[in-house]
Amino acid sequence: MTAIPDPARLDDLAAHVGALPGFDDAAARAAATRQASLTKPPGSLGRLEEIAVFVAGWRGDPRPRLETAQALVFAGNHGICAQGVNPFPQAVTAQMVANFQAGGAAINQICRVTGAALAVVALDLDRPTGDFTQGPAMGEDETLDAMRQGAAAVDPDADILVLGEMGIGNSTVAAALAAAVFGGPAEGWVGAGTGADDAVRARKLAAVEAGLARHAGTRGLHWLARIGGREQAAICGAVLEARARRIPVLLDGFICTAATAPLHAAAPGALDHCLAGHVSREPGHRRLLDAMGRRPVLDFDMALGEGSGAALALGVVRAALACHDGMATFAEAGVAGG
Amino acid sequence: MTAIPDPARLDDLAAHVGALPGFDDAAARAAATRQASLTKPPGSLGRLEEIAVFVAGWRGDPRPRLETAQALVFAGNHGICAQGVNPFPQAVTAQMVANFQAGGAAINQICRVTGAALAVVALDLDRPTGDFTQGPAMGEDETLDAMRQGAAAVDPDADILVLGEMGIGNSTVAAALAAAVFGGPAEGWVGAGTGADDAVRARKLAAVEAGLARHAGTRGLHWLARIGGREQAAICGAVLEARARRIPVLLDGFICTAATAPLHAAAPGALDHCLAGHVSREPGHRRLLDAMGRRPVLDFDMALGEGSGAALALGVVRAALACHDGMATFAEAGVAGG
Repeated sequence: MTAIPDPARLDDLAAHVGALPGFDDAAARAAATRQASLTKPPGSLGRLEEIAVFVAGWRGDPRPRLETAQALVFAGNHGICAQGVNPFPQAVTAQMVANFQAGGAAINQICRVTGAALAVVALDLDRPTGDFTQGPAMGEDETLDAMRQGAAAVDPDADILVLGEMGIGNSTVAAALAAAVFGGPAEGWVGAGTGADDAVRARKLAAVEAGLARHAGTRGLHWLARIGGREQAAICGAVLEARARRIPVLLDGFICTAATAPLHAAAPGALDHCLAGHVSREPGHRRLLDAMGRRPVLDFDMALGEGSGAALALGVVRAALACHDGMATFAEAGVAGG
Repeated sequence: MTAIPDPARLDDLAAHVGALPGFDDAAARAAATRQASLTKPPGSLGRLEEIAVFVAGWRGDPRPRLETAQALVFAGNHGICAQGVNPFPQAVTAQMVANFQAGGAAINQICRVTGAALAVVALDLDRPTGDFTQGPAMGEDETLDAMRQGAAAVDPDADILVLGEMGIGNSTVAAALAAAVFGGPAEGWVGAGTGADDAVRARKLAAVEAGLARHAGTRGLHWLARIGGREQAAICGAVLEARARRIPVLLDGFICTAATAPLHAAAPGALDHCLAGHVSREPGHRRLLDAMGRRPVLDFDMALGEGSGAALALGVVRAALACHDGMATFAEAGVAGG
């Protein structure tokens, strides 16, 4: 099953999602039965039990192992930076990619602690997307190409996938995507990002409003092309590829989650195999998770991106599956009350 | 510096806490300065930054390592079980200790994932404490002896200590301790524990109210003797020993936290080196954390005890210190904007 058929158009993808694998109810039921037999009061591992059953259902395995964890960070540059929406120079995107490759960023340390293999995919950093206040950010072929790069980066042997992003200016892209898909006043989606002061924040808001006005009438995945960016499209491609391979996904913060909003709009259920790794302190993120009906695993006031919150949540998933697989049953341990 | 002088009386300990090491402001300031130099927007690691600075201050080291993590689980049996406060037979305490020793419990799996060395200390399981509705649970010497056992179990080379407990009936002990120290209607502190139905819960409530009435006028650490238990006293002893050795502590759920309430009452600040590893779904726990001014690291609807929530939070502390120690500075990485 190929996640993104070639040739394809954006309008074809929504129907294609329905043909991808779904949740395996029988595996999930068997996992829940196992949970009830383990040496603990019923339900006392709380969300760890839910996570174990979730992974079992998506892996199609009542007792899934977590051997290979992949963290994928996609990086892109954005024409919207011409509107002065970020205090950092755009060169920082490539500098941070080099930092990821040298092992010096937060995501490197967190992946080491939680046991994820990190891969970084830089998408045409020297060729920023178009300024969406002036025209479309990307053409359709360009969007599909970035989606395919995202899909191709997924390790087919991964048992779980952590997704993250890096791109100066992309909290403005995220606000635009969230506002486009879920509506409401644009200012509800515009936050501080990497540290915008009031003047920068006002320019972010103006850019989002101008983008929404210019591209009014756009629908579904076409939002990715009109106001998105390459790392956003790559994230959507990786999400679809993971679905095709029954790999559960941990989404990172506001920008990563907003990247998937057009997919959510185009194909309800397309993100059912994804967990929200954390809720960031970027105020739009909680609103977005509420709109998408997701409860985050962690809540640590983080707002870094890079996949950092999702990679941290991987440790929780590891613990959930370790308990599910490694605990003795009441019968095995000779403990009364099971 | 000995955490618990010998000979000592419970009334001596409060004054002794003031002589134990305190938070090292200079180390914490140096750690905060380092955080500001790392390749991330200021504050973007949220609580991970706070945790790194907290550990730096308590270790007295601006760049603390986390090499040795110890998890200590104390187990005890309780005379209050005569009041029918728990659906499980009291023999389950020893059965679960055997399960810990055989590696079959949740805490074993979580410690493996987060890298803690687990030690289990069973405290006179064949000799339950007194029924506190009929008289004191323990005498003063018995209480001090359990505290010393708790202190002696702390690995002096540990960089961090995870504390947990096991003891059939001890959610009733916890409710009594919390009500004794913080007041309010006893029913606000009595929850389902390992799975009490309405009838069992009514007996828990009656037992707590009878215990408070019988021991009215008790103060500070004497509550540990009157209505506590051996694992509660051992937890207090381990907390003091950790303080003497500048070892930060991760407390587990309602029962573990309530065990420390008499210490909190006797010596304000005695728990300043402790983090609340999680907030459990036992309703008294959030109330207790609020009363003690603590914000939990995790919130996963867990209610197992055994140190499971605290051991899970250890993974977060590991990530916080890995970022603090391993990230490149802006200058080192050649990233603009630092």
